[in-house]
Amino acid sequence: MAAEKTDFTSKDYYFDSYAHFGIHEEMLKDEVRTMSYRDSIMKNKHIFQDKIVLDVGCGTGILSMFAAKAGAKHVIGVDMSNIIDKARLIVEENGLADRITLLKGKMEEVVLPFEKVDIIISEWMGYFLLYESMLDTVLLARDKYLSPNGKIFPDTATMVISTIEDAEYKEDKLNFWDNVYGFKMTAIKEAAMREPLVDTVESRVVNASQCVFKTIDILTVQKADLTFNVPFEISINRDDYVHAFISWFDIEFRACHKPVRFSTGPFSRYTHWKQTVFYTRDTLTVCKGDTIKGNISCAPNSENPRDLDITIDYQHSGKEESSEGHMEFRMC
Amino acid sequence: MAAEKTDFTSKDYYFDSYAHFGIHEEMLKDEVRTMSYRDSIMKNKHIFQDKIVLDVGCGTGILSMFAAKAGAKHVIGVDMSNIIDKARLIVEENGLADRITLLKGKMEEVVLPFEKVDIIISEWMGYFLLYESMLDTVLLARDKYLSPNGKIFPDTATMVISTIEDAEYKEDKLNFWDNVYGFKMTAIKEAAMREPLVDTVESRVVNASQCVFKTIDILTVQKADLTFNVPFEISINRDDYVHAFISWFDIEFRACHKPVRFSTGPFSRYTHWKQTVFYTRDTLTVCKGDTIKGNISCAPNSENPRDLDITIDYQHSGKEESSEGHMEFRMC
Repeated sequence: MAAEKTDFTSKDYYFDSYAHFGIHEEMLKDEVRTMSYRDSIMKNKHIFQDKIVLDVGCGTGILSMFAAKAGAKHVIGVDMSNIIDKARLIVEENGLADRITLLKGKMEEVVLPFEKVDIIISEWMGYFLLYESMLDTVLLARDKYLSPNGKIFPDTATMVISTIEDAEYKEDKLNFWDNVYGFKMTAIKEAAMREPLVDTVESRVVNASQCVFKTIDILTVQKADLTFNVPFEISINRDDYVHAFISWFDIEFRACHKPVRFSTGPFSRYTHWKQTVFYTRDTLTVCKGDTIKGNISCAPNSENPRDLDITIDYQHSGKEESSEGHMEFRMC
Repeated sequence: MAAEKTDFTSKDYYFDSYAHFGIHEEMLKDEVRTMSYRDSIMKNKHIFQDKIVLDVGCGTGILSMFAAKAGAKHVIGVDMSNIIDKARLIVEENGLADRITLLKGKMEEVVLPFEKVDIIISEWMGYFLLYESMLDTVLLARDKYLSPNGKIFPDTATMVISTIEDAEYKEDKLNFWDNVYGFKMTAIKEAAMREPLVDTVESRVVNASQCVFKTIDILTVQKADLTFNVPFEISINRDDYVHAFISWFDIEFRACHKPVRFSTGPFSRYTHWKQTVFYTRDTLTVCKGDTIKGNISCAPNSENPRDLDITIDYQHSGKEESSEGHMEFRMC
């Protein structure tokens, strides 16, 4: 659970949530995630053969070991979490200690044994792609260490928005606070309304087209591009109600011989990223063919840069009803 | 997720996990928990009528509001988490601000508007009853503020141990680390073995009698009693295998007109405390009528007193097989 906090560096010092194996268990057991990385590395030995590889945020070392097995000359894994102490034992146990060097520390502070690397691998994605994300760190590593013509795995991320009918769950998550064993808890309902909900959404409740609102080319994107305000337009595909916008992201390893892709959307297999739900204050009555246009913005919170400020503005012009709204969220 | 940390006070300052509404949503929606408190308070108006009540760790203020509705003259709620800022708004919204005073701070530091209270109410229980528990704080409040003949809701907790057959889940949770996409991760398996697992256990896998190993009378228990090393004895009730010990706790409100009780065990309805599982290193082959004797100890960890050090020693003397073991766990 996240919480009020002001001094992020100090908090990190005292609370290293990635040190506990539980979070790595969840990520490793996410087969969509881990097998996409495995396939993109192990099925592309011709790309990894004799290369110098940098693994940004190596965690348990799984991606570094995939790269070593794929023939890399040397792999450097960097992580600031104490989990790297276990990763060292794991790399040793699997007989890869001579080909993998693990460095504990921040990317901007560690001293790499190579001036340049041929390939950067990293699993940096957070909820809503950018939450608590390490993408800034990947970009830093790219600009400092990646050779010209170097590759990044993965190299493309796209962010998608759509709408859902979600009366039952909205009742459970938000209207619950209207009557808690006979008491009203509006202060908590307001807090819950301001925070996007990360949860699995069933594909059958999606009632509109999917709009890609942001495409990120990891090879060229700049940190400033991760603060954005972009338009979207979606088309309702049945007579229904809209209770929320949802967002998810898709990931591509285009550098592969045969591109590897996975989606964290509701039409694909479960991933630990689930989807991100933004409840509207009012329910929209929508008809097949209606259009919802809007803008979605995303920026690191000024107090705590790991939190995200997200806004959604929308205009719905429909056969039965038209409306517009401005919604502000903080992902924390 | 818990993690390496040394300076607990500082960590608390930077990370107030109870400030986020999510944890309160989980607790409030735990109907076994919340309705037991509601019934023990609201169905005992004759006990609460015109009394001064102290709610230790009041959170959203739900118990304080139950007590006010039950006729208490005045209720004081104390909590050090920022959630109390929301609780103030909630108490106001429900028209109870004149009968409930909420104080933000540590129990040992806040100044109560009354010298003595008639009743202490508190929901202080953690996983394995004592993990991250506020019981120390309740005892402090009791010794400082409770009138002679005062009551505590709840007033009794019992801790229970038994054994389970759990081959499939043990495979998933522990043996998973023997082959993670082709790699061995023994360092993480060892860490996972040392930590009790909090999860729901199906009643059908319980294969022994239940032994109450610790009964805590909240009215009289001393802090030193919460560090203990006590014997247990359980009797196997079918030919089976034992993969783990499990523990849970039961709670009683004996001060009620008609005692209210609930159990967090596998034979009762789900609660958010689930059960606590301690995997044995080896599988025990057990027969109906076999006895497992042992000792279970529990103590706050010396480095981080909110963590628990738990040991289980056991001797199994059976028809087919006899064995013994010494297991050390840290709940963190």
